[in-house]
Amino acid sequence: MSFQTVSETQCFGGMQGYYSHVSVTLGCEMRFSVFTPPQAKNGKVPVLWYLSGLTCTEDNATVKAGFQRIASELGLMIICPDTSPRGDDVPDDEGYDFGKGAGFYVNATEEPWAKNFQMYSYITKELPALIANEFAADMNRQGITGHSMGGHGALTIWLKNRDTYKSISAFAPIVSPMNCPWGEKALTGYIGENREGWAEYDACALLEKHGASDTEILIDQGLVDNFLEGQLKPELFKEACEKTGQKLNLRMQEGYDHSYFFIASFVEDHLWHHAAALRT
Amino acid sequence: MSFQTVSETQCFGGMQGYYSHVSVTLGCEMRFSVFTPPQAKNGKVPVLWYLSGLTCTEDNATVKAGFQRIASELGLMIICPDTSPRGDDVPDDEGYDFGKGAGFYVNATEEPWAKNFQMYSYITKELPALIANEFAADMNRQGITGHSMGGHGALTIWLKNRDTYKSISAFAPIVSPMNCPWGEKALTGYIGENREGWAEYDACALLEKHGASDTEILIDQGLVDNFLEGQLKPELFKEACEKTGQKLNLRMQEGYDHSYFFIASFVEDHLWHHAAALRT
Repeated sequence: MSFQTVSETQCFGGMQGYYSHVSVTLGCEMRFSVFTPPQAKNGKVPVLWYLSGLTCTEDNATVKAGFQRIASELGLMIICPDTSPRGDDVPDDEGYDFGKGAGFYVNATEEPWAKNFQMYSYITKELPALIANEFAADMNRQGITGHSMGGHGALTIWLKNRDTYKSISAFAPIVSPMNCPWGEKALTGYIGENREGWAEYDACALLEKHGASDTEILIDQGLVDNFLEGQLKPELFKEACEKTGQKLNLRMQEGYDHSYFFIASFVEDHLWHHAAALRT
Repeated sequence: MSFQTVSETQCFGGMQGYYSHVSVTLGCEMRFSVFTPPQAKNGKVPVLWYLSGLTCTEDNATVKAGFQRIASELGLMIICPDTSPRGDDVPDDEGYDFGKGAGFYVNATEEPWAKNFQMYSYITKELPALIANEFAADMNRQGITGHSMGGHGALTIWLKNRDTYKSISAFAPIVSPMNCPWGEKALTGYIGENREGWAEYDACALLEKHGASDTEILIDQGLVDNFLEGQLKPELFKEACEKTGQKLNLRMQEGYDHSYFFIASFVEDHLWHHAAALRT
């Protein structure tokens, strides 16, 4: 359970840290960032997990999303994990959308990926255990969000662990990897040709399987996002929510694209959404 | 006066653009970023110039400083130029603190730098002319700020052009390049061994030469900044302000370093400072 501090920098009265540790689950060294708000000096604080998208590391959202200001106000700890196993010993693929930087938050069963690409277990078990032991995190008050592939990760992880994560939101998520090129490539590669196993990592399928909860889902989606029609397809998730009676606040944002400038523009609303549910 | 749009992305209701143009002054192609606030739809808006530090381009502050939110609220246009001439035909140096990425906002007189390294003229003449012609900028309401080497740029450019720039602030500025290793290296290389020419690019010397103005200067300086004692030396500028009667609000910020996490933490205060002076 040991970890190293890469850097710690004061920001908005809190501490923006970068850390590394050897992950047993992934079989490699991993990095993650934690923003610890000033309220943590007085006791444990609620936690928001932020899962990033394709090609990203723990660094992108940490420096570009601008969450520290409002997290400091609301007393939220923000954790940004990396998006895949890393290192020279980890297999990779030439595509930006498979292999390193594209773990898709699944547990791979296919070779050569199965040994390292266990991001679902890493995000839901190993990293939370480290956080619970080493940081001032109230693990009874966790929420989860993410962007694009990370929005897919947030939705699917929440749907399978609704007792653990009390609040959920997403920015421009992949809502049905079974029905888009990014998802079909990733699930074929990591899980195999048999589509039956894919449903465990598809937010639409999981919602229909598990049914609605009382927790409202907040999703922001830019209308000039280049990936809107071909990959993201929020209408599929809207339909699944309507079918199951799941509360969804899907905001289609005119003029916004898929970038961190979009995320930064709405991150305050998301943190308020989580803080309200986590009763900070 | 032609320029090209590299990208334009909606952010906080305004437009974050990246642009390129061929600079006659610098003899190379240059990039810059402009955040145009939503208020520009209704007419020209005041302008804040943000000059970046060593190793930076127009991109660093644009993605890391988090100024768009408050600029959108206050109706400020924010312009981030690059920090030096660029391209294969421009001479360079092995050091990170001289040559490309380290133009120091001076007009070089020494070879081989004199042909391209004319950043003072570029920032004060060529780029403002382009902005005035092509953007919804009210050039009668300009302010200037910057970080580290860019704080030096902001202070010196303001001191020599107080009719043009109505407001001034800086983050962790180099206040006296005549009296620190970064400045001595740069001024020796760009201006030559004769120290008489250096005073034209030294904020402390310029303040003593031109005397106080009624405009209050806002400076934030982190107390755990690694460069505080060896390079930045804000006490020298404080002394020059006291000697001349110049109003200075120098805020020594406990626990903060030299990073963009420091800048992001205080950028809102700086934008309010400028907006108040520019009467937005």
